[in-house]
Amino acid sequence: MAQAVERPGLLSLAAGFTDPASLPREAVASAARLRLAPDAPTEPLQYGTNQGRLELRELLAARLARAEPGLDPGLLGRGMLVTNGSQQALYLAVQTLCDPGDLVLVEQPTYFVFLEMLSGLGVGARAIPVDDSGLADPEALRRRLVEWRRTGEAERLRAVYLVSYYSNPSGRSLDADRKERLAEVLSEAGLVIPVVEDAAYRELHFREPHPAASVLSLPAWASFPKLYAQTLTKPFATGLKLGYAVCDDETWRLKMQHVKGHQDFGSSNFAQALVATALGNGDYDRQLERVRPIYEAKRDALETALAPLRARGWTWEQPAGGLYLWLAAPRGLETSMDSALCRACLEAGVLYVPGDLCLPAPAEGRFVRLSFALLPVDALAEAGRRFVAVAERLTAG
Amino acid sequence: MAQAVERPGLLSLAAGFTDPASLPREAVASAARLRLAPDAPTEPLQYGTNQGRLELRELLAARLARAEPGLDPGLLGRGMLVTNGSQQALYLAVQTLCDPGDLVLVEQPTYFVFLEMLSGLGVGARAIPVDDSGLADPEALRRRLVEWRRTGEAERLRAVYLVSYYSNPSGRSLDADRKERLAEVLSEAGLVIPVVEDAAYRELHFREPHPAASVLSLPAWASFPKLYAQTLTKPFATGLKLGYAVCDDETWRLKMQHVKGHQDFGSSNFAQALVATALGNGDYDRQLERVRPIYEAKRDALETALAPLRARGWTWEQPAGGLYLWLAAPRGLETSMDSALCRACLEAGVLYVPGDLCLPAPAEGRFVRLSFALLPVDALAEAGRRFVAVAERLTAG
Repeated sequence: MAQAVERPGLLSLAAGFTDPASLPREAVASAARLRLAPDAPTEPLQYGTNQGRLELRELLAARLARAEPGLDPGLLGRGMLVTNGSQQALYLAVQTLCDPGDLVLVEQPTYFVFLEMLSGLGVGARAIPVDDSGLADPEALRRRLVEWRRTGEAERLRAVYLVSYYSNPSGRSLDADRKERLAEVLSEAGLVIPVVEDAAYRELHFREPHPAASVLSLPAWASFPKLYAQTLTKPFATGLKLGYAVCDDETWRLKMQHVKGHQDFGSSNFAQALVATALGNGDYDRQLERVRPIYEAKRDALETALAPLRARGWTWEQPAGGLYLWLAAPRGLETSMDSALCRACLEAGVLYVPGDLCLPAPAEGRFVRLSFALLPVDALAEAGRRFVAVAERLTAG
Repeated sequence: MAQAVERPGLLSLAAGFTDPASLPREAVASAARLRLAPDAPTEPLQYGTNQGRLELRELLAARLARAEPGLDPGLLGRGMLVTNGSQQALYLAVQTLCDPGDLVLVEQPTYFVFLEMLSGLGVGARAIPVDDSGLADPEALRRRLVEWRRTGEAERLRAVYLVSYYSNPSGRSLDADRKERLAEVLSEAGLVIPVVEDAAYRELHFREPHPAASVLSLPAWASFPKLYAQTLTKPFATGLKLGYAVCDDETWRLKMQHVKGHQDFGSSNFAQALVATALGNGDYDRQLERVRPIYEAKRDALETALAPLRARGWTWEQPAGGLYLWLAAPRGLETSMDSALCRACLEAGVLYVPGDLCLPAPAEGRFVRLSFALLPVDALAEAGRRFVAVAERLTAG
């Protein structure tokens, strides 16, 4: 993907990169000046700990407790693990929970790198059924679980994975009620299994934060082992590659920490010190305030360019945060990697992520993930026009 | 370990940390100023690629080709994977080669985190026998392989792991002849299995570099799939947490890259840019020249303090590089975690790594790994005195 992005003339609506023009150069420079000043301790250039910088964990815990006032910052900080992006937290979570042949319950669509990772670890995915609105449907899940009990698949379910804020790829969020109903259905089916909540885009709302509390505070999830993962890089600087997870199950967290000890024994201590500085001095929040309207304007630019597709039977919801549009093509139009649409888009110089990559098999191949984060507004408009031209031609034909 | 280090009064000869006083603050600050200057591209703050920065790979490849003139820098750069310290390279190497129940051939002693990692992945270790000098013994390995052929263990050997420059923990290096003899013995036994050469300490020689070429250029290893791992953090700044591997087997490297894509899709691009700057402008080499005499003086300080033990039957070799002394206690004196020596050392306020952790089971429990890297010279002398006082008491009794 990264290589394709570098091809001249090709416009990528596929890459999940962040807006390059607003990267927080000044905030990082100022943090680096402070941390590397002649009278500052050199300790950030030394190894840190496997769990992560205490200073950073405390700042993040206080931040999360401000978003969800019921949570105890002390507990959050002690249950936190700093990782190489939230991706490593997801990897460690699955690696410590699952053996080959096990199953994880996921939304449809879900984060496609998570699906690839499951497959790499020999772990299967089972989809939570969706209702007419395309959201996870607790009642349909209840029926599905009865079926999976019969087939023996229910016994192999080791975890449930939710991308619950401005999802990659759907752009949608789970409201508290629906999130709680999912817990109740699982609980009633005797499946009090670990839940992994991926909140990577939670802080990338365009206007107001999404009102739903995380699984960490929702009462229906209280008895479940919980891991809540968030990234520090998507909302700030992807090049620092830091994320974190809060885990309320100590045995599980210590297992993850143990495996992390074998993988790298601790994320870059220097990068952690830089982010801690930016969190502490307000630069992190100023950066968020700066990028929110940028992403909203980019969403608008892409949506405006795509608008003609609505008349051709294409549908999508306008996301209130995140970096993605999730398009449904008219029934019968294939969008997968080897489809005519995908080939024609490549020829026309526009890249997208085929939606079937985001769906556990057997997948319906008529969805498209478009990212509006990387390209500048005028290039987004041009990429959108290219996509529309191809899609109109193929929808007509 | 990190927590124990922070206990007041306790002196750690256990932690593999680097010298704090000489951490390259100025070099990192200058690289950060350059990379974050108002007119510099912000791209280091964006995602990089899974394989690692091209700029960094090219600099490292040219550097390695200077150390081993037969190597082709173009090939090296293309076969390189940048990782979160060399630790991640070791992890990915084993993860992609081995299934649970498989075996890896290791030296004795060997890097204890590698042994723990094998165990975490369900992989066993088999030791290359040593000769009277304590080095890997090719002839004894030949006999052992015949035995392992009979027991079926030879078929389960998936890789051989060598820490061949100023080894952690032994401080010793493998000369080219011995390294080649190992390849010949394996080859003659029909075991042309992947070799992982861990050269983490290669550049931390005190005077001259060790003359032995790596497995990448030694003719006897030519037909083996090879991975050569080196760290950028031990010789420069551990807080940046970067390492790399060169792998001449494309299938194997692509598998590792694939798994790395699931673990973190690329190490911190910003940290990579900082190290590339320091490699390019000479700061990296100036830092090496600065720390070499520091570590040599620290080795001397610890050895001087330990000298009285020689009369009590303790033995060790003086290392010409690296960060460790590897002590053999007189036969009969136990050094393991639950030994009287270990407990008495803790009480006396000095920490060491019990040598049996560095030996594949069944392990002889009379070795001690001491690191002279972390403590300042006067604290090293004091830590050495504490160790000697305890050891003399227990050797006498």
